[in-house]
Amino acid sequence: MHQITGFLTVDTPGLGLLPITRKVVDWVAGQRVQTGLLTLLCQHTSASLTIQENADPDVRRDLDDAFAGLAPPGGAERYRHHLEGPDDMAAHIRTVLSGVHLAIPITGGRLALGTWQGIYLWEHRRHPHRRRIALHLMGE
Amino acid sequence: MHQITGFLTVDTPGLGLLPITRKVVDWVAGQRVQTGLLTLLCQHTSASLTIQENADPDVRRDLDDAFAGLAPPGGAERYRHHLEGPDDMAAHIRTVLSGVHLAIPITGGRLALGTWQGIYLWEHRRHPHRRRIALHLMGE
Amino acid sequence: MHQITGFLTVDTPGLGLLPITRKVVDWVAGQRVQTGLLTLLCQHTSASLTIQENADPDVRRDLDDAFAGLAPPGGAERYRHHLEGPDDMAAHIRTVLSGVHLAIPITGGRLALGTWQGIYLWEHRRHPHRRRIALHLMGE
Repeated sequence: MHQITGFLTVDTPGLGLLPITRKVVDWVAGQRVQTGLLTLLCQHTSASLTIQENADPDVRRDLDDAFAGLAPPGGAERYRHHLEGPDDMAAHIRTVLSGVHLAIPITGGRLALGTWQGIYLWEHRRHPHRRRIALHLMGE
Repeated sequence: MHQITGFLTVDTPGLGLLPITRKVVDWVAGQRVQTGLLTLLCQHTSASLTIQENADPDVRRDLDDAFAGLAPPGGAERYRHHLEGPDDMAAHIRTVLSGVHLAIPITGGRLALGTWQGIYLWEHRRHPHRRRIALHLMGE
Repeated sequence: MHQITGFLTVDTPGLGLLPITRKVVDWVAGQRVQTGLLTLLCQHTSASLTIQENADPDVRRDLDDAFAGLAPPGGAERYRHHLEGPDDMAAHIRTVLSGVHLAIPITGGRLALGTWQGIYLWEHRRHPHRRRIALHLMGE
C-alpha cells in the first residue's frame, strides 16, 4: 500500500461547471494504482467540486440557474460581505451548498464512477480564475 | 493495512430517503476491520447519500418537502433539461445539494456514527430505480 | 503506513459557524504524519462541518442568514417534525445541505487547505450544544 499526492491547476472561463474528468483520469492513470481511494479538495471558497451528469450540457446550465435562485448575487442590500463584488458572497453560499471535496474509490485501475457521472469544477465567480485542486491517492 | 472494495445494490420504491445503515453495517462486519475508513459513492446523478436522524420518520418526509421547495419539479417552462420528465432536472439539483459520497471512520470494528445518525440512500426520482453504491474500506 | 483515530469535543455557543481549524491542526501535529488523509465526521444531525473563508467574519453571518432563508425555522404549520422546537427541523435540513464529513489531504506535514480556507463546525440549533467529531488519519 502506498500513497501519492499532487495538484491539478484549472483555469476557469468564469461562472459554470467545467468538466475535469479527463484531467483526473489521466492523473490517476499515471500512478499505476489498481485498487485504492482518490480524494480531491478544491482549495478555494468560491469554487466547488461536484459529480453530475456527463451527457446533456443543459443540465449544467440548469444547475447554474437553480443555484442563482438559491443564492442570488447582491450588494449591501442583501449581504454584509459585499466589497468583493455582487457575485462574491453568493459564490461562498454556492460553494457550501455543493461542497469542496470528493472521495472516489478506484477499482480495476479505474475511478468507480457510474456511467453518467462526470467530475466538475464549479466556478461560482463571474470572471475567470485559476483554481487549484489537491489530490491524494492511496492504494496498490 | 489492507483494503476491500465492493458494491451495494439498492432497489428504491421511488422518491424518499431509504435507510441503508443495516446493509452497510453488515457489509463492514464481514470484512473484519477493527480500525479503518469506509467510503461510499452512489453511482448516479439523481440519487444521493446522506447521514440523518434515524428515529422519527417525519424528519425524512420534511426533508423531501424541503427539497421539493428548493428544487421544484418542472417542465420546459422551468428547465432546459426536461425531456426525461418533470422530476428529472429537480432530481439532479437535489443530488448536488445532498451529495453522492460519504466517508465514515471505523473504530472498534464499528462505524463511528453518532447515536441518532443513520445512512440513507435518497431516491430523487418519482419511480422505483435500482441504484448501485461503490464501497471502499481500508484498515486493519 | 499507519492510522490514528480520535475525537474532538466542541462546545458551541448556539447558532453559527465556529472555527475549529486550530483544534484540528493541533491534533494532526501530534500524530507526526507527513503525508496522509484526514477524515472528520460530525456525529450529529443538527450540526455540520464545512470549509469556508477564514478572513471576514461577515461571511459566516451571511451564511447563517442564507441558510435561514433556505430552511426557515417553523412549527406545526411548516414541519411534521416540530416537537423539539421551531429550530430543530430547520437544523436537520441545514445539516443535509452543508454536510457532516470532510476529507483533507495532508502534505508536508500540513493540511492541504487553501490560503483562505478554514474548517468550521456549524451549529444549527439556537442553544449551546456539546458536539463530537470523529477523526481518522491515515498516512506516514
